[in-house]
Amino acid sequence: MIIILKRGATKEDADEILGKIESAGLKPVYMPGVERTVLGAIGDERILGGLHLESHPQVARITPILTPYKLVSRDAHPEDTIVEFDGVKVGGGHFAIIAGPCAVESREQMLATAEAVKNQGAHCLRGGAFKPRSSPYSFQGLGLEGLRILKEVSQAVSIPAVTEVVEVGDVADVEEHASAFQVGARNMQNFRLLSALGKSRKPVILKRGMAASVEDLLLAAEYIVSEGNARVILCERGVRTFETATRNTLDLNAIPHIKQHSHLPVIVDPSHGTGVREYVSPMARAAVACGADGLLIEVHDNPKAALSDGHQSLNPDQFAELMTELRPFIDAAGKTV
Amino acid sequence: MIIILKRGATKEDADEILGKIESAGLKPVYMPGVERTVLGAIGDERILGGLHLESHPQVARITPILTPYKLVSRDAHPEDTIVEFDGVKVGGGHFAIIAGPCAVESREQMLATAEAVKNQGAHCLRGGAFKPRSSPYSFQGLGLEGLRILKEVSQAVSIPAVTEVVEVGDVADVEEHASAFQVGARNMQNFRLLSALGKSRKPVILKRGMAASVEDLLLAAEYIVSEGNARVILCERGVRTFETATRNTLDLNAIPHIKQHSHLPVIVDPSHGTGVREYVSPMARAAVACGADGLLIEVHDNPKAALSDGHQSLNPDQFAELMTELRPFIDAAGKTV
Amino acid sequence: MIIILKRGATKEDADEILGKIESAGLKPVYMPGVERTVLGAIGDERILGGLHLESHPQVARITPILTPYKLVSRDAHPEDTIVEFDGVKVGGGHFAIIAGPCAVESREQMLATAEAVKNQGAHCLRGGAFKPRSSPYSFQGLGLEGLRILKEVSQAVSIPAVTEVVEVGDVADVEEHASAFQVGARNMQNFRLLSALGKSRKPVILKRGMAASVEDLLLAAEYIVSEGNARVILCERGVRTFETATRNTLDLNAIPHIKQHSHLPVIVDPSHGTGVREYVSPMARAAVACGADGLLIEVHDNPKAALSDGHQSLNPDQFAELMTELRPFIDAAGKTV
Amino acid sequence: MIIILKRGATKEDADEILGKIESAGLKPVYMPGVERTVLGAIGDERILGGLHLESHPQVARITPILTPYKLVSRDAHPEDTIVEFDGVKVGGGHFAIIAGPCAVESREQMLATAEAVKNQGAHCLRGGAFKPRSSPYSFQGLGLEGLRILKEVSQAVSIPAVTEVVEVGDVADVEEHASAFQVGARNMQNFRLLSALGKSRKPVILKRGMAASVEDLLLAAEYIVSEGNARVILCERGVRTFETATRNTLDLNAIPHIKQHSHLPVIVDPSHGTGVREYVSPMARAAVACGADGLLIEVHDNPKAALSDGHQSLNPDQFAELMTELRPFIDAAGKTV
Repeated sequence: MIIILKRGATKEDADEILGKIESAGLKPVYMPGVERTVLGAIGDERILGGLHLESHPQVARITPILTPYKLVSRDAHPEDTIVEFDGVKVGGGHFAIIAGPCAVESREQMLATAEAVKNQGAHCLRGGAFKPRSSPYSFQGLGLEGLRILKEVSQAVSIPAVTEVVEVGDVADVEEHASAFQVGARNMQNFRLLSALGKSRKPVILKRGMAASVEDLLLAAEYIVSEGNARVILCERGVRTFETATRNTLDLNAIPHIKQHSHLPVIVDPSHGTGVREYVSPMARAAVACGADGLLIEVHDNPKAALSDGHQSLNPDQFAELMTELRPFIDAAGKTV
Repeated sequence: MIIILKRGATKEDADEILGKIESAGLKPVYMPGVERTVLGAIGDERILGGLHLESHPQVARITPILTPYKLVSRDAHPEDTIVEFDGVKVGGGHFAIIAGPCAVESREQMLATAEAVKNQGAHCLRGGAFKPRSSPYSFQGLGLEGLRILKEVSQAVSIPAVTEVVEVGDVADVEEHASAFQVGARNMQNFRLLSALGKSRKPVILKRGMAASVEDLLLAAEYIVSEGNARVILCERGVRTFETATRNTLDLNAIPHIKQHSHLPVIVDPSHGTGVREYVSPMARAAVACGADGLLIEVHDNPKAALSDGHQSLNPDQFAELMTELRPFIDAAGKTV
Repeated sequence: MIIILKRGATKEDADEILGKIESAGLKPVYMPGVERTVLGAIGDERILGGLHLESHPQVARITPILTPYKLVSRDAHPEDTIVEFDGVKVGGGHFAIIAGPCAVESREQMLATAEAVKNQGAHCLRGGAFKPRSSPYSFQGLGLEGLRILKEVSQAVSIPAVTEVVEVGDVADVEEHASAFQVGARNMQNFRLLSALGKSRKPVILKRGMAASVEDLLLAAEYIVSEGNARVILCERGVRTFETATRNTLDLNAIPHIKQHSHLPVIVDPSHGTGVREYVSPMARAAVACGADGLLIEVHDNPKAALSDGHQSLNPDQFAELMTELRPFIDAAGKTV
Repeated sequence: MIIILKRGATKEDADEILGKIESAGLKPVYMPGVERTVLGAIGDERILGGLHLESHPQVARITPILTPYKLVSRDAHPEDTIVEFDGVKVGGGHFAIIAGPCAVESREQMLATAEAVKNQGAHCLRGGAFKPRSSPYSFQGLGLEGLRILKEVSQAVSIPAVTEVVEVGDVADVEEHASAFQVGARNMQNFRLLSALGKSRKPVILKRGMAASVEDLLLAAEYIVSEGNARVILCERGVRTFETATRNTLDLNAIPHIKQHSHLPVIVDPSHGTGVREYVSPMARAAVACGADGLLIEVHDNPKAALSDGHQSLNPDQFAELMTELRPFIDAAGKTV
């Protein structure tokens, strides 16, 4: 950790801080400059968090040297983690395709969609029972009834299913009805929920928040892993920027960055990431090409009638086309699908 | 609602959508153009939400005419709402100052800080018992013990207190220990929590999310109000932008915009909004000047020892100075303090 | 064009605006609603720009129906434009790789780099003689001497070269020494420069500005094309967002969006777009996969000694590796290289 | 300067870099850590720019200790700079109001507007002759004829005038016709133009770019000052963010930040900053309150007929009202107007 003092900080200020560093068991370094004094702390600086050195009135800035996350870091675990559930493998060369509607709307809709996506090679079904919506006047999902439909269809079609959990109180219900949890962008920093999921043993697909840096995403994953659940799949789904041509700005740069800094698998959701049906397939191909371990694709058996996000959903024919277009890129990437 | 069709949309596509508009009880308008066909729906377009016209494959874009929120809109309620609790008045010309530490750390810290802020004219105390923190390795708050300290100090010093609630399961506890709820930026779109607070009768300070537009904030408030709790105080606390000179970008433009579009009071948190102690006072003055109804200021009896956000906390002397600097601006704004 | 009036606008206000629409030769539409009055203008709304209807005090909002650009629009010209110069073809299935150092530093550096990139299959050389740098204390390029070196090396190695032009006064010099102009992100809205380049007959690579929407980029291209030079190649190179893990946020979503809305070819610069050497290759592959027509890659014969942007430059071996990795993706995309 | 090496960097890598630091005349510091090695350079690190240490393949990150700008820094010049021209004083307690239309449209419009703003207490007139516009089909200004009208009206009404310069080739003309130059947001990093203005002796109002950090703005000012023209007035006019409720996001946080880091005066343009007529006055008051040294306000004698930006222009009555509302805040701020 590098601590840059304000102009006018005295030798006493420096000594006070150096003393704290030393008492925490780290090696203090003193670098008096002409214009500014700089201090260093050598060792596992994460333990300095408890000292709150940034609160000192003579501290101008602190630059960490190590990443603030540890368990999810590739430094801690150099090999790729493979998350496996009910026959689905994600990471370490295994590419997974998760497809289905934004929301569970009815048994018929789920059955038709599940069969369509399975036939085209999807490994897993998606569908939300609890829908976080910006407006209280929008469709909020079928709740527990939606979970029941999801499980029934998942078993009938023999395809595992993932669904979103939005609240600590629902964790047990979701765990009973789905193969994996999904945490949405709006809950990425719902730390209570993350901690609760850390106590589960089912995998968690953790979506990046709309204003979250990749570091924030990795710290959110650290909440889950540090509670004991190492089966986390990260998901890039777009961040909020000034550009309005797309609903969000899908940030594929995050993929190589995550691959360099973390051992966790990372998948991409081009449906939410762009919000435009026609851009889903090109961005899915790009996700494969830059190293993603899977895709989350919105498919609806009849998008025109969808109760939410119909404008970004593919119909079964469009999904079939996407799968055809995708295969040569998955081959080029050397992944197993 | 204006519906712009894609190039190549046929008269049949237009008729299908116009039929839906008519069957929903609105007046349909057909405007065939040379390059594009445009449709209109005249009436309370909010009921069109249930038709999901955006999902139609021939719809290029939909432009709403009315705001998506209704109860919080100034159209629905032209006079300013005044939220009052335990002697504090916010809105309609009443300016309120809420001050205190980021987190409740101990009885001593709270008592010293509460006395200091009360002496300087603060109307209300703040202090978090449940702290959402980016890293699992940071101080997470004292929890229920923190709530107890807050209530005890609030009574001892005779100053009402507000505190953050992060989870539906904690609503009852917070309601019992505090005069008002605070919903943090990370939970602004925790819709379950908003709905639960809508069933309470205590006021809610709703902070804008880091990637939330003002429209998103007003829709989040609509969740609370539509459940029956009209006592919502909005709070601007900075959004996330490319600028790193400040921790967040405090967006004061939101104040006149909210004042024009909503009747709810709105306060400003320059401590989180800037993240820099030296900028708190100038931005507090600016908040008063552009029409805010109050301030949320971080004050700690000993910022150097603060367990969180010490670098943006004022000490009691700095807070006294801020209050002195603020008064002529509150007078200039014609507000009562 | 759809014109939404403010609450309280009268029939007279509407009639005044409808009269202006009619006198401009467009068909006016009047849609009085319960809460708001909406007006429409049917026909080529671009001519309404001259009426400045947005300045009317009773106009709340204007929603255009047509795109503000015309000549660069795919509506105007449905087939892909292929820009060809000195044997290089970009667009319409032709994929071009432009590689070279950020700046021309010396004859030796350019010669070594040009030979290396040509040997690996690059179609065109890049290298800046005029360097826009944030700080006046950074290396500003060799200027005219740099142009001379570039031309000499281009001829010696038999590879065409592109270079940046930053100022109207330099257009003639750059035209004489290079096969194509490059307009940097900081000059994307230097409209004088764009107009001057519109009068040249050499191709222009137009880079997206750091805060420019894709619509802004297409309007900037419209400046060049409307002056008579239709040989414009667009270039995505990253926009500025809150994320600091990468130097910029390369916005690949722009590629399918541009492909849908414009006939112009579009290439991608993953070197500036990410600012991190290790992410250049994965993002180059992603660019191919989502439909880009070419790449702009920074290569330096000795990045450790580079006078600018060395941290994002590949050395010749890394460039060779990138080319090897890229080929199966170019094949998968069905492009000719 | 702090240099953080990559994991796996050897003692030889460190020695190579330490050697370069030493040979540049700075004191090298070696801090080997358990996970990473950190190096320091003590002294005037700005001279290290020429060493391009960031290009070294084993350098992970560089953290500067000093600001990259020098002449505009408050460290270099602790007292406020007052820029004075033709009787107008900006900075050091002097508050200046510059008002007028977006564009010079005619002699009549300029005369009417100039008289109106002068009567209400404005110190200086504004009006653009060269207008940078996103679309080639928008009004581009009257050019040289506009400059002539501006000068004539300025003399007739006895009020100095400022106007935008967009191109090196126009510097002499603008210098001849106006009291001060204005550099627009789109040209903030037109470094050739900045250097040319640095050779003039007339003041320069330098507007912040839409994607420019405050550090970028100060570096742009450094270009002008380092060429010999110290009379620079900075101007905050809004940056581009995800929020669309306002045309730009006026970032008032920049004001206290600039005041802390630079001695140059800084003014605020709430007209472009918000793009909404009704928000101009509240944000003007906020600008005064947080420490700005002046305002740039768009006023048009007949906004309904304005050829550009009419929706954000005040008419003379609204400007009079703004001035009345502003005065108590200017008093509260202790400024002289």
